Amino acid sequence: MIYLTRRADFSASHYYHDPKLSPDENKRLFGKCANLNGHGHNYTLEVTVKGEVDARTGFVVDLKELKDIMEREVVSAMDHRHLNKEVPEFAQLIPTTENLAVVAWKRLEPALRVAKLHRVRVYEADDLFADFYGEA
Amino acid sequence: MIYLTRRADFSASHYYHDPKLSPDENKRLFGKCANLNGHGHNYTLEVTVKGEVDARTGFVVDLKELKDIMEREVVSAMDHRHLNKEVPEFAQLIPTTENLAVVAWKRLEPALRVAKLHRVRVYEADDLFADFYGEA
Amino acid sequence: MIYLTRRADFSASHYYHDPKLSPDENKRLFGKCANLNGHGHNYTLEVTVKGEVDARTGFVVDLKELKDIMEREVVSAMDHRHLNKEVPEFAQLIPTTENLAVVAWKRLEPALRVAKLHRVRVYEADDLFADFYGEA
Amino acid sequence: MIYLTRRADFSASHYYHDPKLSPDENKRLFGKCANLNGHGHNYTLEVTVKGEVDARTGFVVDLKELKDIMEREVVSAMDHRHLNKEVPEFAQLIPTTENLAVVAWKRLEPALRVAKLHRVRVYEADDLFADFYGEA
Amino acid sequence: MIYLTRRADFSASHYYHDPKLSPDENKRLFGKCANLNGHGHNYTLEVTVKGEVDARTGFVVDLKELKDIMEREVVSAMDHRHLNKEVPEFAQLIPTTENLAVVAWKRLEPALRVAKLHRVRVYEADDLFADFYGEA
Amino acid sequence: MIYLTRRADFSASHYYHDPKLSPDENKRLFGKCANLNGHGHNYTLEVTVKGEVDARTGFVVDLKELKDIMEREVVSAMDHRHLNKEVPEFAQLIPTTENLAVVAWKRLEPALRVAKLHRVRVYEADDLFADFYGEA
Repeated sequence: MIYLTRRADFSASHYYHDPKLSPDENKRLFGKCANLNGHGHNYTLEVTVKGEVDARTGFVVDLKELKDIMEREVVSAMDHRHLNKEVPEFAQLIPTTENLAVVAWKRLEPALRVAKLHRVRVYEADDLFADFYGEA
Repeated sequence: MIYLTRRADFSASHYYHDPKLSPDENKRLFGKCANLNGHGHNYTLEVTVKGEVDARTGFVVDLKELKDIMEREVVSAMDHRHLNKEVPEFAQLIPTTENLAVVAWKRLEPALRVAKLHRVRVYEADDLFADFYGEA
Repeated sequence: MIYLTRRADFSASHYYHDPKLSPDENKRLFGKCANLNGHGHNYTLEVTVKGEVDARTGFVVDLKELKDIMEREVVSAMDHRHLNKEVPEFAQLIPTTENLAVVAWKRLEPALRVAKLHRVRVYEADDLFADFYGEA
Repeated sequence: MIYLTRRADFSASHYYHDPKLSPDENKRLFGKCANLNGHGHNYTLEVTVKGEVDARTGFVVDLKELKDIMEREVVSAMDHRHLNKEVPEFAQLIPTTENLAVVAWKRLEPALRVAKLHRVRVYEADDLFADFYGEA
Repeated sequence: MIYLTRRADFSASHYYHDPKLSPDENKRLFGKCANLNGHGHNYTLEVTVKGEVDARTGFVVDLKELKDIMEREVVSAMDHRHLNKEVPEFAQLIPTTENLAVVAWKRLEPALRVAKLHRVRVYEADDLFADFYGEA
Repeated sequence: MIYLTRRADFSASHYYHDPKLSPDENKRLFGKCANLNGHGHNYTLEVTVKGEVDARTGFVVDLKELKDIMEREVVSAMDHRHLNKEVPEFAQLIPTTENLAVVAWKRLEPALRVAKLHRVRVYEADDLFADFYGEA
């Protein structure tokens, strides 16, 4: 049983805002992130799959296929985008690092065939990241 | 003569758009960066000052003062902001990495007293950065 | 269930020395680290908390609160300090990376309210770090 | 119970090739890695051991001993080597990142005495790594 | 006048060997690098161009064009290749980091049109790199 | 003409203190660094030499020799040491990053034979470093 991890980067903007709350309440909850003009980050998506090593190829997963799935399901949908305005899941959901990890999991999990998705990690910056293992 | 360099980070969003051009022309010139919803980055501002080492303190520049100047002149004005909409210089100027370095220089240079500003470097990402030395 | 990780840096000095042992024995056990003049490191404290994502805010933990707790309980007590001489826990305990992780856990765990502390990682350098999960 | 991790680097070349398959089949399975001239990487070996902290030394493992074992069992055998041609395990086995992690585990596990090997991670590059925990 | 720098990575293998010298002499001059089985690295190519900022676009150089030139002239020719065997310049020339920087300059300089090539830096590893400014 | 750069790391402790000044004055000038218990850092020494590429070897400098000189002249004298107490130059001189770069230059310059020392850079941390080019 081997865990194979691959990374990909994307740049996006976002803001944290709950339309059911007052501006003051949004400011209190979300601080600088409540600015409706948006701000942005260089995100890193880190995907770990788990499986047995194929005796013939030495692979847990075809690396090209994994890269293509990450690109198609997450990176192309979020890179150089405004997460709140252009990624459907974030029309209602605050695009925090935590929610980004959950959304990326939900997009990647059905697309993976052979290997099993083990963990999705999203870095908002070098010093802040969220991990999701698909646990309810 | 010693060159002392200090870094600071900020996160911002921006887009590349020239209102005098058509949408197609903007798209052709600026590609994914032309998206008017904006996207963003974790920027790094790297400031190099040049001077003689003070024989008593061993400093070219008071590090706390340099940090405060970087924070006051650049970071607080750009962090968690939309560069096009909230930083006055970018009302007319495209906020490319090149122009960010020039704008940061113009903000920092008059604020530095003892040491001389030698270089401003701005990283948009690990693999892309611009240097300005104040050369016309 | 999401795991959220935040990092903070501090710089400190330390030495490894057991007063019950002879200088030769200390030297044999601790090598270069036995130098009683001390030496130092840029440490990184990496704290992982675990919890459910709040449906309203998208947060597992208030990031500002987590940062303040890390600063108050660990960073301000250790940054620019001599661990053996200024951090009470290390009056008797050798300040190895392992013990630093345990001490940071014991300081952080009671201060965290909503989210549960999952792991404390301390890097002494890029190539050496210790993890503590609170396991006896 | 503490987990202590140490890193070491080595540079090696390799290729991916199954002699039982045709050139076209090798090319289809392994892409650019099938080039029989070989290509190479700066690898990072990251070894995590697990154990109780020794009350006297504050160590889970003697760091010098761990470093020596990593050097002797893995680094000296692979650094500045061609993995397929000079590392016996890869005479039959494709030297993928996954298999490198397994081979490093098998070399390290019997050499460790006090602490228990918990995980071997091998980075082929910053954005690609494999973890092995000794699980069948 | 602005200096704009872009990075790209490639993985290659090489060896250091002078066919006019004896094996012992090669070993003495080149140490572990003399191994004729080859070894390899993850290289980083860092290209700096210099020019005036275009008042309309805010660019010194079209970033997409610069990326394409780096890819076409250097990366595609060296990535997943054996430098001695597959890059014509290294049929006679030892592929040291120094010579890689010179060869990359000679490939890039004629391909750049608007901006002027200022520096080529090649990293063989994080702790070793060579700079070439086109100086005779 | 090529510039070749090599890095090496060392860990040391220090404090900033001028015995001719009062404790309050030291505190005002040096802030947290004035703590006489000392604190420490993981320093990086980055040495750049300049020269013509040897047509036979492809080297500006023998890398092994450069590494040995850096180790002998700087790293072994400062690693796991207290700079103020154990490095003679800092008996009178405040061990700031600036002065470390100057001291390293003075130690390295006479030891280099073939290649010419071009720059010494010392990192106290990722976000703070000093460069010395031997300029009066």
